[in-house]
Amino acid sequence: MSEFDLIASLQRIICLPADIVEAGCRVGIGDDSAVLEVPPGHELIVCTDTLVEGVHFPSGTRPEAIGHKALAVNLSDLAAMGARPTFFFLALTLPAADPAWLEAFSRGMASLARQSRIQLAGGDTTSGPLSVTITAMGVVEKGRALLRSGARPGDKIVVSGIPGAAARALQLIKNEEAPDPPDRAALEFPVPRLGLGQALLGKATACIDLSDGLAADLGHVLHQSGAGALIELDRLPRSNSLEALPDEARWPLQLAGGDDYELCFTVSPSVVPDLPAIANSCGVELAVVGTVVRQPGLKFARADGSLFGLASSGYEHFSGQENST
Amino acid sequence: MSEFDLIASLQRIICLPADIVEAGCRVGIGDDSAVLEVPPGHELIVCTDTLVEGVHFPSGTRPEAIGHKALAVNLSDLAAMGARPTFFFLALTLPAADPAWLEAFSRGMASLARQSRIQLAGGDTTSGPLSVTITAMGVVEKGRALLRSGARPGDKIVVSGIPGAAARALQLIKNEEAPDPPDRAALEFPVPRLGLGQALLGKATACIDLSDGLAADLGHVLHQSGAGALIELDRLPRSNSLEALPDEARWPLQLAGGDDYELCFTVSPSVVPDLPAIANSCGVELAVVGTVVRQPGLKFARADGSLFGLASSGYEHFSGQENST
Repeated sequence: MSEFDLIASLQRIICLPADIVEAGCRVGIGDDSAVLEVPPGHELIVCTDTLVEGVHFPSGTRPEAIGHKALAVNLSDLAAMGARPTFFFLALTLPAADPAWLEAFSRGMASLARQSRIQLAGGDTTSGPLSVTITAMGVVEKGRALLRSGARPGDKIVVSGIPGAAARALQLIKNEEAPDPPDRAALEFPVPRLGLGQALLGKATACIDLSDGLAADLGHVLHQSGAGALIELDRLPRSNSLEALPDEARWPLQLAGGDDYELCFTVSPSVVPDLPAIANSCGVELAVVGTVVRQPGLKFARADGSLFGLASSGYEHFSGQENST
Repeated sequence: MSEFDLIASLQRIICLPADIVEAGCRVGIGDDSAVLEVPPGHELIVCTDTLVEGVHFPSGTRPEAIGHKALAVNLSDLAAMGARPTFFFLALTLPAADPAWLEAFSRGMASLARQSRIQLAGGDTTSGPLSVTITAMGVVEKGRALLRSGARPGDKIVVSGIPGAAARALQLIKNEEAPDPPDRAALEFPVPRLGLGQALLGKATACIDLSDGLAADLGHVLHQSGAGALIELDRLPRSNSLEALPDEARWPLQLAGGDDYELCFTVSPSVVPDLPAIANSCGVELAVVGTVVRQPGLKFARADGSLFGLASSGYEHFSGQENST
């Protein structure tokens, strides 16, 4: 398969019909660069994330899941800013051009691209060890993007979905056991919370997506906001498989398991009554799990008020999964 | 080295002082995404390119050269659109976090970023086989970007620099011989022709950067413009080392060697008298090497008028270096 066949095949499968995407791609695949428009009064939101075989997903992962997840982890970063997705660029490194693999990979990516109304506007394909880098772009009205730096003491801390479900699935797969289907779906086909992020514009004081685990990611929000927090462990939502674990085995997965791609955000207490309507309109569970406090530091309280000490707060070392901007 | 040290180290070395970059990065490294502004009346120009160790550069290449070249190949794509560079995103996959390697890599990248006034606005670092993906952005006044599709019969074909110099260096390195220093510099530290690209706005009818070789890349312009061309081989500029080769050994390097990162563009004959002043103001050699013709196909003529048949027209297969958008 020549490079041109390869690019054409990706383009055919991944590109969306004009009527379901944002206007603004004047020149896409086929020139030296893409030529894009940003609507007046908006800022451009950009993120990039790489998935490497054997680091971010096990060898032998289904290509549909790789295609989905490579785009999803980037869309999750756009969601955390409240952005409306517009365009993405795909840099794909493959050991060999296997048409069946490539078609399945593209289908996984195209399905999510269509749901998210984001258009493939360019890319690069090369040979080498399997790795996927996506740079995704979106737009937000000027000055409104959700940042990590706005949490204030007294704000309530909210999470979407079930932190720890993906980590529980990965734990079982590593032990060669079968995870529950919903946990496996959370790991392989995470749903970026784009609608939620957009619904939080003007409501959340700070927002981040959970990729390295609640403790590490909320830690970034607290650090940039100059505050601390208390998490009430009993308030963390649980899947059936997480419910079945003893507390002390479940909490590390929920706090430091990573790979959640849920949103964690802070709101003034006056916004808490609006949360059920937001959850309902976005089709996602929301749970208030703690409170921002003035004193720096992140603490985890059991139901009896005693504090739980977390041994490790997420992937912080170069040997593991990395954080990105 | 933790991921945060790694990101901070890259940021410290690569980020530029505010006074030498374009305004418009409201939020950079340290949030889920960057928040950028595009100046009113401009379009956003975006490209992405990956370099993989063992594919795009030999193992053991100096880290300064890898850092320079990863950015240069992207800037070359921006140059081919006539864009003014603004921001770039770096996805870096490394087998280990070696501080000395990383510092040298960052220095090579930072030096070119500073010259080109492009700012690092985000990125991702991960562990895995050595590979660098950059997504670079620039701006052009609305509707003015140089495209591949505008060449017309009668237009003159112009190249910058010396196509084939980098390929000659790579050929000697593969044979464990020492290339001439200027050829080695063309291979390891290509200079993206940003000033030239901007000077061609409103003057060139089509433009492309030479990454896969003149034959393949000019072929894209001709295909998208619905035209053909005749190249006069004697007009191709030569370095001393290329001059020393027999014609039939030199031409394949100049036409299909690749890795040139020079610009190839077409102009109306009425613009040809302006070329010396453009060359002078941009500090680059320009040579008229052929003419666009109505009949499709790309032909290469010797000085005696006989045609030279090129066996291979550049990296077209998946096993080699790939084209990108």
